[in-house]
Amino acid sequence: MSTQVIEATERTRVRRHADRASYERERIYAILDEALICHLGFVFEGQPIVVPTMYARQGDWLYIHGAPASRMLRVASEAEVCIAVTLLDGLVLARSVFNHSMNYRSVVVLGRAQLITDTEEKMEAFQALVDHVVRGRWEEARHPTVKELKATKVLRLRLDQASAKLRQGPPTDPLQDQTLPIWAGEIPLRVGPMEPIEAPDLPVGIPVPDYARHYRRQVGAS
Amino acid sequence: MSTQVIEATERTRVRRHADRASYERERIYAILDEALICHLGFVFEGQPIVVPTMYARQGDWLYIHGAPASRMLRVASEAEVCIAVTLLDGLVLARSVFNHSMNYRSVVVLGRAQLITDTEEKMEAFQALVDHVVRGRWEEARHPTVKELKATKVLRLRLDQASAKLRQGPPTDPLQDQTLPIWAGEIPLRVGPMEPIEAPDLPVGIPVPDYARHYRRQVGAS
Repeated sequence: MSTQVIEATERTRVRRHADRASYERERIYAILDEALICHLGFVFEGQPIVVPTMYARQGDWLYIHGAPASRMLRVASEAEVCIAVTLLDGLVLARSVFNHSMNYRSVVVLGRAQLITDTEEKMEAFQALVDHVVRGRWEEARHPTVKELKATKVLRLRLDQASAKLRQGPPTDPLQDQTLPIWAGEIPLRVGPMEPIEAPDLPVGIPVPDYARHYRRQVGAS
Repeated sequence: MSTQVIEATERTRVRRHADRASYERERIYAILDEALICHLGFVFEGQPIVVPTMYARQGDWLYIHGAPASRMLRVASEAEVCIAVTLLDGLVLARSVFNHSMNYRSVVVLGRAQLITDTEEKMEAFQALVDHVVRGRWEEARHPTVKELKATKVLRLRLDQASAKLRQGPPTDPLQDQTLPIWAGEIPLRVGPMEPIEAPDLPVGIPVPDYARHYRRQVGAS
């Protein structure tokens, strides 16, 4: 990795709850690698638009992709965008309504999205996207054809304006509330896989691969 | 509810995969009621910004809240915003990399966020926010004081420009891929609660309430 810390800019510095902010590259990358989808924001005719989409991190770059006709990719290409990634870790129940909160780890990335035209980099982006979601799948699935690559638009965004924000731990009630006869604590939340469901048209005798049977999110940055 | 369908506008009509779109109010509201957080998009000095935050639906309105000093609430107040809510239901593994997908239910809402100043409506918004996250908690937790209400900014957004987009079911591979010896199917994902963790400063003898011990998301619109 190029640097240990991503320098905060006027735009990426966290102001509310600055104690929850982190600019460490390792922490930011770990959140990006664990989450599955992002919310991409762009401006279309003055109107902010937010669209959920998948993404992948490869080194210091984020990749997103879609159909060439997609408004998201048309408008976001060579434009300023914002990508937000959020992991919701739990609900925080304080004695007072006012101090209720959520535990989360989130990353916000700002920057100019660049259109990738190089076929080789497009193929690498495809692999990064598949690896991001299901490690091991790239080696087994049928790879994209030239026609399929052409039918996909890929954008990249450099991770040089990014910040993380985190809340963890129990509720924080003011002293006078702590003796109230009200339960307080956390309800942790986890995203978990269920039993894989095979495609109805799957030929007999093809076993469920381990990465599907024991699906889990990768933990920690690489 | 005022109407069964939210009329699509030029901006809310889903163009990509139009077959995945829904403008039924009931379906849109069910997604909004099941998800826990939204991603709010606004424009700050020409730059799109996306911030994760909690929200609640009350009738045909969405409420969001935060500290008066929050940039999000300052900039979004009386401005055009976009709120995206996404439930990720599963990973879709096709034979080809190209046809990999995700199953999801998402809603995008556009509109002008209005600042609420009426104390009574602010209190109702607080209740809606708590009810949205943990049904039953409002009746037990200490209610907001006048000072706490003043220390909170509440915005509302009318649900008259909204659309849902959904993908469900197995992968769709072209015929020539269906005989490849590659497993295909879905890995369903669910957000589930873990055992509640009581606050370290909780007095002895306060039992875990049922809504925390058996936490579950509400299903279906009301």
